[in-house]
Amino acid sequence: MNTMKITVQKFGGTSVAGLERMKRVLEIVSRECARGNKVVIVLSAMAGETNRLLDLASQWSSDPDPAELDALATTGEQVSVALFAMLCKDAGLKARSVLGHQVQIRTTCDYTNARILDIDANTLRAMLNDHDVLAVAGFQGCDEHGRLTTLGRGGSDTSGVALAAALNAETCEIYTDVEGVFTTDPNICDKARKLDRISYDEMLEMASMGAKVLQIRSVEFAKKYNVPVRVRSTFSDNPGTLVSQEDKSMEYVLVSGIAYDKDQARVTIYDVLDQPGVASSIFGPIAEKGILVDMIIQNTSRDGHTDMTFTVSRKDLQKTLALLEAVRQDIGAKEIQSDTGVCKVSVIGVGMRNHSGVASRAFAAMARENINLLMLSTSEIKITMLIEDKYAELAVRTLHEEFELDKQPGERKVGEV
Amino acid sequence: MNTMKITVQKFGGTSVAGLERMKRVLEIVSRECARGNKVVIVLSAMAGETNRLLDLASQWSSDPDPAELDALATTGEQVSVALFAMLCKDAGLKARSVLGHQVQIRTTCDYTNARILDIDANTLRAMLNDHDVLAVAGFQGCDEHGRLTTLGRGGSDTSGVALAAALNAETCEIYTDVEGVFTTDPNICDKARKLDRISYDEMLEMASMGAKVLQIRSVEFAKKYNVPVRVRSTFSDNPGTLVSQEDKSMEYVLVSGIAYDKDQARVTIYDVLDQPGVASSIFGPIAEKGILVDMIIQNTSRDGHTDMTFTVSRKDLQKTLALLEAVRQDIGAKEIQSDTGVCKVSVIGVGMRNHSGVASRAFAAMARENINLLMLSTSEIKITMLIEDKYAELAVRTLHEEFELDKQPGERKVGEV
Repeated sequence: MNTMKITVQKFGGTSVAGLERMKRVLEIVSRECARGNKVVIVLSAMAGETNRLLDLASQWSSDPDPAELDALATTGEQVSVALFAMLCKDAGLKARSVLGHQVQIRTTCDYTNARILDIDANTLRAMLNDHDVLAVAGFQGCDEHGRLTTLGRGGSDTSGVALAAALNAETCEIYTDVEGVFTTDPNICDKARKLDRISYDEMLEMASMGAKVLQIRSVEFAKKYNVPVRVRSTFSDNPGTLVSQEDKSMEYVLVSGIAYDKDQARVTIYDVLDQPGVASSIFGPIAEKGILVDMIIQNTSRDGHTDMTFTVSRKDLQKTLALLEAVRQDIGAKEIQSDTGVCKVSVIGVGMRNHSGVASRAFAAMARENINLLMLSTSEIKITMLIEDKYAELAVRTLHEEFELDKQPGERKVGEV
Repeated sequence: MNTMKITVQKFGGTSVAGLERMKRVLEIVSRECARGNKVVIVLSAMAGETNRLLDLASQWSSDPDPAELDALATTGEQVSVALFAMLCKDAGLKARSVLGHQVQIRTTCDYTNARILDIDANTLRAMLNDHDVLAVAGFQGCDEHGRLTTLGRGGSDTSGVALAAALNAETCEIYTDVEGVFTTDPNICDKARKLDRISYDEMLEMASMGAKVLQIRSVEFAKKYNVPVRVRSTFSDNPGTLVSQEDKSMEYVLVSGIAYDKDQARVTIYDVLDQPGVASSIFGPIAEKGILVDMIIQNTSRDGHTDMTFTVSRKDLQKTLALLEAVRQDIGAKEIQSDTGVCKVSVIGVGMRNHSGVASRAFAAMARENINLLMLSTSEIKITMLIEDKYAELAVRTLHEEFELDKQPGERKVGEV
């Protein structure tokens, strides 16, 4: 009897914002049912609803209790799934809503940012025996005490992927308001091309750079459990982008995309003592406050002193500077400077693992446009450059053109094998 | 260790509509905590919220699935308790929100109109060991399958009373936007007086007549478990009205209040066959459709035929007439007439059990004002008269004056022992 084919489809807030849009979702779900599949549909709160609820909370308390925030915020998805289940039933589908505490989407107790520990797949499968469609509330779970939890912003993506993994679903589709994952941001580069496929690792780099198509954690989850995820648009029939494990064909593609992130601030500490423990004196307190430090560069030591440069998110800059002031004497720093007029641009591709020359081509392209590189860092599949932010758009377009990303990989002139 | 004193306080939608009003609730709760009591506070959805949600549902479906309606509607109370718990914590109280599925307020599966079967008092008591205040979502529970249920309109009153019964609470207070239970509707009789006490039975009669202070079921529940309930205003310190078991002192009060109900329609069926089975042919189909029939009168038979008169709620009149048309031939009825210009007025008092003469005084008072009695029915503690609805206000004031309800029972001239 376990020949049940299961499709998981996740729809974001814009896809469920209002009756007309939900009818479009119903169309997609019905089509899947007509193919003979059981459908687990994961819904977000209607666009704007989560913000409305969190705004309420901030009126009620300057520092709202996280567990209560979750009890509050989970109502958004609860409304979506109840309404959608009504719609399904009217359309003749056997459907019901399912909340995070009903299937037991068990999470950690980290309210507002919980992680999924376990999903009771047996209960879900039993429900699927009796139903065509289960409308599962995304973003939410419950902890060991039965309290409601949420998975952090964009958490419904993770709900979708986790459900697909737990149910060993045939397909996991994440529906959103864009056509898929693009080679770069179409808003600043009109030659940006939708990718048919992208690897988990590339997607992680794209996502962390602000290509906000999928929540990072959902991609990590998909990678861990090897769940192929199709990102596609609710409002068209374009097949979107398949995010999946790297395979041979991907390795032949040198560069997959160009990402950028303007939310960057650079901090330089001059003449720090170059001795053990100094780095942890600097970055320990910053990490404790939950501030993410990105690129870190340390110059070669001179006279027992060195310069240290790193980047943080712009919103964290003032807090970071205050923390540095507090340790300034201990680390023997002469001067601390900061700069918010910077931007990070990255060239991403798993093909780099097997090909050299990508970095030098990128640097040469930037030089041709007189764009000065302020900081550099490279990983196996990424080259990141910090530049003045006024050059951000130019840099993205230049790199996009250099690596011929507007063309299908097979049609590119150079750099491919 | 079981010397814990527990107070249950229930606040309705107008009492939690907005931050300022919730602060007033916090004041009341804090005062109770300062007395050393543990407080279980039961909250309704903010005024208007339940209607907003049900309006959404009716846009989504002409006949929404009841289980999904409940999944939808329960979010209203969930928002209230989460926000209120935040407020409590900011005020330094140890507080948390509690949902119907978390304490296991177990109900029947009758979605939108479920009945409480059981409350897990042990879990609640364990929570109270660690908290000053538990903010429990009213109106909701969950069934044996873990699905959310609601208790019907005004169900939060029942939640409050049921929790007080389960916890053997010292006090059960129902806070609302009126000062308590009045001898009659103050809107049509400016001499209406707030009652200090009223018996469960009297309250049931008052409530069913549209004195909408407490949900009827909550009064039944209070009576069954003998929970004294204090009805009082959130917005004043008036001690309100105590609804409790009848005692000796109440029996000396002849009449406690005058109720009226304008939502009445009268139906008369002429020349029905007077034979066994006819009454069930008439009222069977009506009951099956969930229509409540109130007063029923059958005249003495003539020539094997009789007339039958009864009242229903005005909204049910058309449905009732259609059902009667369907059985008209079977019951041999000559004619069916209906009339919506009628009103029910009742004189209520447990003292009637031991005193005669109340009915004749009531009839005489009506006659003095030339108010014709269309139908009559009496019970142990109630005399009900159907009159033309244009006389409704006059009848209420006349009866109120006749029984001197504006005066304290001890100060009344006549009819008291």
